Amino acid sequence: MASSKAFTMTGGDVAYSYSKNSTIQRDGVDAVKEQIKEAILENFDLKRLGFDTSSTAVIKIADLGCSVGPNTFFVMENIIEAVELKFLQAKNQNLSALEFQAFFNDHYENDFNTLFKTLPPSGKYFAAGVPGSFHDRLFPKSSLHLAHISYALHFLSKVPKEVVDRNKSNVFNSSEKEVVEAYSTQLKSDIECFLNARAEELVPGGLMLILAGAIPDGVSISDTVIGVYNDIMGSCLKDLVKMGVLGEGKVNSFNVPIYLVTPTELEAILRTNENFSLEKMEKHVQPMKKPLSPEGYALAVRSSFDGLTRHHFGDEFAEQIFNHFSTKVEPNFSKFQRCLRNSLNLFILLKRI
Amino acid sequence: MASSKAFTMTGGDVAYSYSKNSTIQRDGVDAVKEQIKEAILENFDLKRLGFDTSSTAVIKIADLGCSVGPNTFFVMENIIEAVELKFLQAKNQNLSALEFQAFFNDHYENDFNTLFKTLPPSGKYFAAGVPGSFHDRLFPKSSLHLAHISYALHFLSKVPKEVVDRNKSNVFNSSEKEVVEAYSTQLKSDIECFLNARAEELVPGGLMLILAGAIPDGVSISDTVIGVYNDIMGSCLKDLVKMGVLGEGKVNSFNVPIYLVTPTELEAILRTNENFSLEKMEKHVQPMKKPLSPEGYALAVRSSFDGLTRHHFGDEFAEQIFNHFSTKVEPNFSKFQRCLRNSLNLFILLKRI
Repeated sequence: MASSKAFTMTGGDVAYSYSKNSTIQRDGVDAVKEQIKEAILENFDLKRLGFDTSSTAVIKIADLGCSVGPNTFFVMENIIEAVELKFLQAKNQNLSALEFQAFFNDHYENDFNTLFKTLPPSGKYFAAGVPGSFHDRLFPKSSLHLAHISYALHFLSKVPKEVVDRNKSNVFNSSEKEVVEAYSTQLKSDIECFLNARAEELVPGGLMLILAGAIPDGVSISDTVIGVYNDIMGSCLKDLVKMGVLGEGKVNSFNVPIYLVTPTELEAILRTNENFSLEKMEKHVQPMKKPLSPEGYALAVRSSFDGLTRHHFGDEFAEQIFNHFSTKVEPNFSKFQRCLRNSLNLFILLKRI
Repeated sequence: MASSKAFTMTGGDVAYSYSKNSTIQRDGVDAVKEQIKEAILENFDLKRLGFDTSSTAVIKIADLGCSVGPNTFFVMENIIEAVELKFLQAKNQNLSALEFQAFFNDHYENDFNTLFKTLPPSGKYFAAGVPGSFHDRLFPKSSLHLAHISYALHFLSKVPKEVVDRNKSNVFNSSEKEVVEAYSTQLKSDIECFLNARAEELVPGGLMLILAGAIPDGVSISDTVIGVYNDIMGSCLKDLVKMGVLGEGKVNSFNVPIYLVTPTELEAILRTNENFSLEKMEKHVQPMKKPLSPEGYALAVRSSFDGLTRHHFGDEFAEQIFNHFSTKVEPNFSKFQRCLRNSLNLFILLKRI
């Protein structure tokens, strides 16, 4: 069964590496830079966190599902700048007495070697890598002041059993009702695990910043970029079965442990958790500073899905799948571009009660 | 100039990887298991560390220069077991309320991917990898309760300038007086940097456990295993120059940033630091549970020196050097075995004042 453990962004230095093909995520992160700053200035309560009287302060920040950079480094810098500004405004702290410990988390299979080698030499923080699933505990009790997660909450801990039992390939977010329901239930359970783990790890008053991709309420999955991806990948796999490259059974058992929520759905999940207060939930259309070319789109898709595809089909077949996929992008590219307006990002601020 | 940055143990899964060829270090670590336990039981002062009244406790432990395992995992387990026993003896703590955060540190070039993938699933601690040189700051102020370093303090931050300027190859610990003095001065300065950094990071009452290879006072370098290694590698490089494989200039600029101290020398350095009290310094002859074969010795040497040799000579030449080296081990093996009795380990306990 495909678990999110196999869902590791492509590391290293290849053409389809995540570091080279994550401008969509970078644009999204950049777009909420001001929101992050504002959220911290308004909600990072120095008094409640015990920093109002101390002569020195160590702020501990985690980026969960950070992949290999460089986006995670930009986010960390943003957060640190905002916290510094907050201390500066409070006028009771010498900035040179502030220290930051930055924890970069992702799966055990993540390419931490590349992450560490590309750490910016800013000297602003002490860096640490933390391997493991963010659905589980990762840090000791009350050991974090801020946690951040972007473009990662949609990863499920596993493909729901009901979906596996259907034995019918489902790239992700199907339009079939029972599939959607099974995925939705799994995501709810996964986010609850995520929040309960973070509730232990964040100090009271600690903040959780979330940037999550979402499907606008009322929009059909077929009118979204992931719907387009679904269709292209689905037809690609069918072609390869017809061509005798892939076995039908292998394709039927290929399910992607991803589910994109609607804002209404996510808000309901977040509001039921008693350990966090929902301070903010804003909708932003996914920005695109520089339009993607069909080739750029194919590489971006591969940087995210290569690991999972290799895991399921094996290295050689993954190669053929992505080669065939890239030939199918161009003819479908106008549909992809049309659907971009339905790519929604949710910026969420939770506070540990 | 060769810096210790290039001095990374061999990661991955190759025949000469550090994980497969570090039984000497493992035997040394095992031999002080009881000493570590005793040191913690006698010196980990729960009251001074603020753990006597708290209902929960998070103990933060770092292994510095940890390489890729498995030795670092054994050490971490040893330390944790001893701390648990200490809490158990104090009878004021529910063990289930204890949490451990284990920081594994080594250079940015260390193979953290392998380290993380081979983490034992004990669930006893929250693991984090910390990249960087232990001669510099690695952690925030007062954020550690225990630090451990084994078989690593002899790595210098750089080859001393005086040695580089001689332009004459020196594998390590030469018998020439001015070389020894330059190395000794460099080590003193490096250990001071190391202690000053740790003094910031350890809480008052925090412990530093050190296991360090050493040369017994009064024993000539030529009667030690590293003296034997020096001679074999030196003659090996000379052969390859004669054979036209290596250039003389390249060999002359090859210096290894390692210096093994005598107990007297190290004690003097440790006693001058005002932030730590020297609680214990014990001498142990390096144990060898299972005698090394000539082949095992050649692999052990390569697992430690491959990175540095590649860095200086390039991949292809490193391959030839180690191939040639392995042919020279057998004829010199009895000398190596004879010198084993001079392989000294120092077990040291420092306490942060």
